[in-house]
Amino acid sequence: MYNCQNNKDIEIKSTEIVDLKDYAKFVDPMIGTAKMGHTYPGATVPFGSVQLSPDTDTIPYAINGRYNPDVYKYCAGYQYEDRTIVGFSHTHFSGTGHSDLGDFLIMPTTGNLKLNPGTAENPDNGYRSRFSHDSEQASPGYYSVHLDDYDIKAEMTATTRVGMHQYTFSKDEKAHVILDLMSGIYNYDDKNVWTFIRVENDTLVTGYRQTNGWARTRRVYFAMSFNKPIANYGRARYDKQPYNGFWGRFDQAHNFPEIAGEKIKMYFDFDIKNQEKLQIKFALSPVSSSGAVANMKKEVPNWNFEQVHENARMAWNKELNKIQLKSKDTEEKTNFYTAMYHAFLGPTEYMDVDSKYMGLDLNTHKAENFTNYTSFSLWDTYRALHPLFNILQPKRNSDMVSSMIVHQEQSVHSMLPIWSHYANENWCMIGYHSVSVIADAIVKGNTNFDAEAAFDACVQTARTRYFDGIGYYIDMGYVPEDKNGASVSKTLEYAYDDWAIAQAAKKLGKEFIYKEFIERSKNYKNVFDAKSGFMRPKLSDGTFKENFDPKDTHGQGFIEGNSWNYSLYVPHDPKDMIKMMGGNKRFTTHLDSLFTMELPDKYFEHTEDISREGIIGNYVHGNEPSHHVAYLYNWTDAPWKSQDKIRMILDQKYKTGADGLSGNDDFGQMSAWYIFSSLGFYPVAPGSVDYALGSPSITDATLNLDNGNTFEISTKNQSKKNVYVEKVELNGEILERPFITHEAIMSGGNLTFYMSDKPNLRQYQTE
Amino acid sequence: MYNCQNNKDIEIKSTEIVDLKDYAKFVDPMIGTAKMGHTYPGATVPFGSVQLSPDTDTIPYAINGRYNPDVYKYCAGYQYEDRTIVGFSHTHFSGTGHSDLGDFLIMPTTGNLKLNPGTAENPDNGYRSRFSHDSEQASPGYYSVHLDDYDIKAEMTATTRVGMHQYTFSKDEKAHVILDLMSGIYNYDDKNVWTFIRVENDTLVTGYRQTNGWARTRRVYFAMSFNKPIANYGRARYDKQPYNGFWGRFDQAHNFPEIAGEKIKMYFDFDIKNQEKLQIKFALSPVSSSGAVANMKKEVPNWNFEQVHENARMAWNKELNKIQLKSKDTEEKTNFYTAMYHAFLGPTEYMDVDSKYMGLDLNTHKAENFTNYTSFSLWDTYRALHPLFNILQPKRNSDMVSSMIVHQEQSVHSMLPIWSHYANENWCMIGYHSVSVIADAIVKGNTNFDAEAAFDACVQTARTRYFDGIGYYIDMGYVPEDKNGASVSKTLEYAYDDWAIAQAAKKLGKEFIYKEFIERSKNYKNVFDAKSGFMRPKLSDGTFKENFDPKDTHGQGFIEGNSWNYSLYVPHDPKDMIKMMGGNKRFTTHLDSLFTMELPDKYFEHTEDISREGIIGNYVHGNEPSHHVAYLYNWTDAPWKSQDKIRMILDQKYKTGADGLSGNDDFGQMSAWYIFSSLGFYPVAPGSVDYALGSPSITDATLNLDNGNTFEISTKNQSKKNVYVEKVELNGEILERPFITHEAIMSGGNLTFYMSDKPNLRQYQTE
Repeated sequence: MYNCQNNKDIEIKSTEIVDLKDYAKFVDPMIGTAKMGHTYPGATVPFGSVQLSPDTDTIPYAINGRYNPDVYKYCAGYQYEDRTIVGFSHTHFSGTGHSDLGDFLIMPTTGNLKLNPGTAENPDNGYRSRFSHDSEQASPGYYSVHLDDYDIKAEMTATTRVGMHQYTFSKDEKAHVILDLMSGIYNYDDKNVWTFIRVENDTLVTGYRQTNGWARTRRVYFAMSFNKPIANYGRARYDKQPYNGFWGRFDQAHNFPEIAGEKIKMYFDFDIKNQEKLQIKFALSPVSSSGAVANMKKEVPNWNFEQVHENARMAWNKELNKIQLKSKDTEEKTNFYTAMYHAFLGPTEYMDVDSKYMGLDLNTHKAENFTNYTSFSLWDTYRALHPLFNILQPKRNSDMVSSMIVHQEQSVHSMLPIWSHYANENWCMIGYHSVSVIADAIVKGNTNFDAEAAFDACVQTARTRYFDGIGYYIDMGYVPEDKNGASVSKTLEYAYDDWAIAQAAKKLGKEFIYKEFIERSKNYKNVFDAKSGFMRPKLSDGTFKENFDPKDTHGQGFIEGNSWNYSLYVPHDPKDMIKMMGGNKRFTTHLDSLFTMELPDKYFEHTEDISREGIIGNYVHGNEPSHHVAYLYNWTDAPWKSQDKIRMILDQKYKTGADGLSGNDDFGQMSAWYIFSSLGFYPVAPGSVDYALGSPSITDATLNLDNGNTFEISTKNQSKKNVYVEKVELNGEILERPFITHEAIMSGGNLTFYMSDKPNLRQYQTE
Repeated sequence: MYNCQNNKDIEIKSTEIVDLKDYAKFVDPMIGTAKMGHTYPGATVPFGSVQLSPDTDTIPYAINGRYNPDVYKYCAGYQYEDRTIVGFSHTHFSGTGHSDLGDFLIMPTTGNLKLNPGTAENPDNGYRSRFSHDSEQASPGYYSVHLDDYDIKAEMTATTRVGMHQYTFSKDEKAHVILDLMSGIYNYDDKNVWTFIRVENDTLVTGYRQTNGWARTRRVYFAMSFNKPIANYGRARYDKQPYNGFWGRFDQAHNFPEIAGEKIKMYFDFDIKNQEKLQIKFALSPVSSSGAVANMKKEVPNWNFEQVHENARMAWNKELNKIQLKSKDTEEKTNFYTAMYHAFLGPTEYMDVDSKYMGLDLNTHKAENFTNYTSFSLWDTYRALHPLFNILQPKRNSDMVSSMIVHQEQSVHSMLPIWSHYANENWCMIGYHSVSVIADAIVKGNTNFDAEAAFDACVQTARTRYFDGIGYYIDMGYVPEDKNGASVSKTLEYAYDDWAIAQAAKKLGKEFIYKEFIERSKNYKNVFDAKSGFMRPKLSDGTFKENFDPKDTHGQGFIEGNSWNYSLYVPHDPKDMIKMMGGNKRFTTHLDSLFTMELPDKYFEHTEDISREGIIGNYVHGNEPSHHVAYLYNWTDAPWKSQDKIRMILDQKYKTGADGLSGNDDFGQMSAWYIFSSLGFYPVAPGSVDYALGSPSITDATLNLDNGNTFEISTKNQSKKNVYVEKVELNGEILERPFITHEAIMSGGNLTFYMSDKPNLRQYQTE
């Protein structure tokens, strides 16, 4: 494996896949860069700390204190429709619906020095450059573009902690490299808190920047090295300087090596020859600039751009070959391997080569026997991404749990991460879904972490009364809408999380705690309104809220979803839910309607994460709460209805091209849904060992597992039309229920789907 | 010794002085707290990191961007004339003429919660309290005052890294402890950069504050512990919050344990019984909050205020007993031991108990085999304080040099400290006087540091062309006033520093470098104007500046001094200076006039560090540049004129009482002058092994040296009137020149001054 792992306890029988194929060539990092995908096209390695990618605009989060809705487009810094590139920055979230980062924007220019980025309408006013997609190349670990305004070929590649730039100039000239330390993604009026820079010598620059954004107290340290000496350099300051003192004795603006302040931009000048390649190594560290220097020395000792690029691509191929598709359909392989690529972008490694990282307490810690990860978009990724990791990335998933455990230990709230990044909790979205990730790993036996500590952390988190209505939830069995908004979504998600804790308790033999949480897991029933047939917000006096519209996503007790969708959110107990909702027939009708009814725009137009592209009827695939919904027919008498829905979603909502994703990829959750579903199964309730079967879209796939086993998925009669499953065989035996277990997969074997263009109305009806 | 020392290489034959006397009782920390002394009365241990002291006002450095001259009074946070105390903060400089610090102001209150300090005119508007000096007690390691507005007895003591508070309440009541994280000394409009606080549990609070003040990028970490559980707590924020995000789900203002922002104040409520003692341990760390917690655990494991106080007093007595005065004159002992106390307040230790400290590169370093120190007020302290340390604190002085070496290694300028504090260079004042400290230690053989590295650092520093006119100085032999202001002061001080480097070079056998710097040391001649008989600013065209007034301190090519005083600044070569200035007679007349002429206020009224109190004639004792001047008669035919001048200065400029100091104590330099001069000798040119003899004011003193030797200074016929020295005997032999060597002192022995009321006009006239 590419990234060195400290922990040797896990048994990895085969780390080398004999027949390594160049699946990287099918990956198109441009997919999702248009509209709402929020992916970035730049260079990174699997789970890499550095994401070196072009930013096509730097929109302020707020203008005069008022939220600027345009910022949402730029969660990943890049929008395909744009015609200019502002520069290349080193940190990007993939597919998120809120954002941060965009650290250390670099832009090479020629001609007059400009330190402002200029505008898309008038790029000549600033340092940004026009570009054309014709000149762009994006592939795993590599990005290239021609900067038209300067006639510079820009190329980038990366290791885990180092971004490498290569700029080829087209004539003899004076060139500038701009380091814009004020640029950032979701840049608040004054997101910058402090900046500190040292020009250590004529090729090395170090420093850090602290920002106050989505992460409140975030420091990123850097070391930047050039492959030729800086001719001249300087800085501009844009902040108020209350006191300059004896610093006034220096000309701090020109060739002065020690710079600090709130708002700073720098430039570095070089005398360049035609066709000369100016290279930059840019290393990051969570801990210190000396850490960044050490990361650079270890990971990129030489000035060999091609070697770094080759290593990055090899790292990707090793990960991509964990599933080998047999297919002649390039589009299928593009969709599939791009999904694999997006699924393996995060959480990202968050420690130096010496295992030091910044803890949530802002102290420096050392990761003992695990790799520390950050950027946990858990409201999204607990659903399918972490379950996918339990199959394909067991070591990493265990280390991610270890990272969550230390987070909880360092948390002054003693809470597991909600949505954490860069030694900060940003508290985004609802629930406490770390417990799902942990329970899923415990139940599936993928516990190369301290399971007792992890379990205790789950319980502690779920008992934090002051967090988001949990006190009410514990006392009353639901979150009352008049006390805490989005109360139904919270009640439902807490109930699922509690079930997950109960499953872990059962596995670990904690009977007392099992009882507490299995009881809590039934709380979903307390927000079901039998009269309307929907989950409905309840007030603290026990009555349901009036003026209820189950189609509306606004102010109805739900978050990023309406009651139509959220009413189906009982992933851990579909059987009882169906009973509660009126039994098989009434439930099936509800579900059928979801996919066919009309949802006028007005019901979701102010909900950022939902757009027309991601919707089928009233079913919202572009956002997460319904990701399990298409599989719910498996608990009715018509599993075949899951099959055509899943194939419809796979077909309609995942396409090639920049606008191929129908919603935020959400750090790989959308892609993980695709991977599972295209293979024919899905983890409806993480924390269960069962996967629900659907309808595969692939023809043949081999899962190369880290334990040395292979699990073969094949289809008979597969075609675009043959979306129905006639029968399924596991290791030659016909399956009598629409589920397979985790163990069946991990033990190796083969799963054969017999496809048909007609539903098998009696399939799986033995139960 | 009190503070643990890592390095065992130095030979300390006797660490225990058999007959330890309680000299602490003679120390009056109130001396210097009125007017310009700028000392603080609070609790600290020798060279301690914590200085826990009352602040009587918190004046902003600037109001609407304009300098507020009143701030100068509050360099140490306390002014004796004030009638209210704002609170007790944990870091203070002693005696400086510019300032910073005042970190973590604590104030106990009762009644309505007030979070603003209020004003001196209207204290009831805020949390500050009236107090009376009658209730104040200040002694080494202890400070106590009655807070009249709240009827609280406040007591404080300290270890090296921990301040301990004890508040005794006078009735059953609800009490508040305010932690004002916006308060500070020399508080710029927005000196606060960031604050981060965690209420770890019901007795422990941790965090850090970063400020942008005299130190540009300064972070101080803390851990605060209470001896009883917090009943309630909260915070107020006074900054703009561009983004609050999902933090809005919490009531962050009340009992919420995780707090961050730019401008924050906190309060902690306690239910208090009459006569209950609320105690606080407040630990600091340069590195991390976990470091602060460790410092607290190590240094103050228990809640025993009296024990901590006793240890602090013992630590002081061990230091004070290094000189044992035999005297029945309480005033003499008060002046002397208070001077000893002030001399041992800094530089301050700057590392955690595990030897970790923040380096100038803002990386965390570990001090290997030395104790790291900070707060080097070198323009002041190189003159007499560090030479005093070479006698009384050889281990510490060596470690201070080691601290300077690592500063230089970490400096992006590769420069030794100019005026450094808390991992920052503030560049205050002129010259590069670290080299004097290093050369003095090398020449005197007190080199428990890497002498080669130290020497290289000196040379590197002195060759930094872009620093403050050094390039011109190297090329032209002087700093031209039209290129760089205060050019004469700079030329003269560089020349002296260069001579010091030459002395170290000679000692280390670096002949080539010796030649370079002994040549540079003659540059003082280039700014001497034979016509006027004064040092005078020269322009880059080689002509002297017109409109020259040697009395004026403003805009005349000097800094904090006029030409009359600065013209005498050739401490390394008085003989040639005298020759240059017209020989013995003319020089003696010049010197005589200095002490007798009148200097109208207009010549110094805008120069902060000079005031009427510090002046005799035109001689300025209250500021440093002339501290060697009274000894210069030793190079003339009238050494007796030094003797009466010195006794006059000792008598007039050092008194008991809050206004006893005639100028800023400048981190012990004024006090070190007193100690040396009262003992009868002074290091006119640090870097030389010679001390010039003066006229002792003490009767009998024993120096207990760390090497186990004792050096006895005694007088015959000593009295206030008998200021002249008839003869001096060293170990029974009459001295034939007015100098003794460092070796003579360190070898032990006795020095006897025979005093008289009439000058011995022929004394020392053998040369």
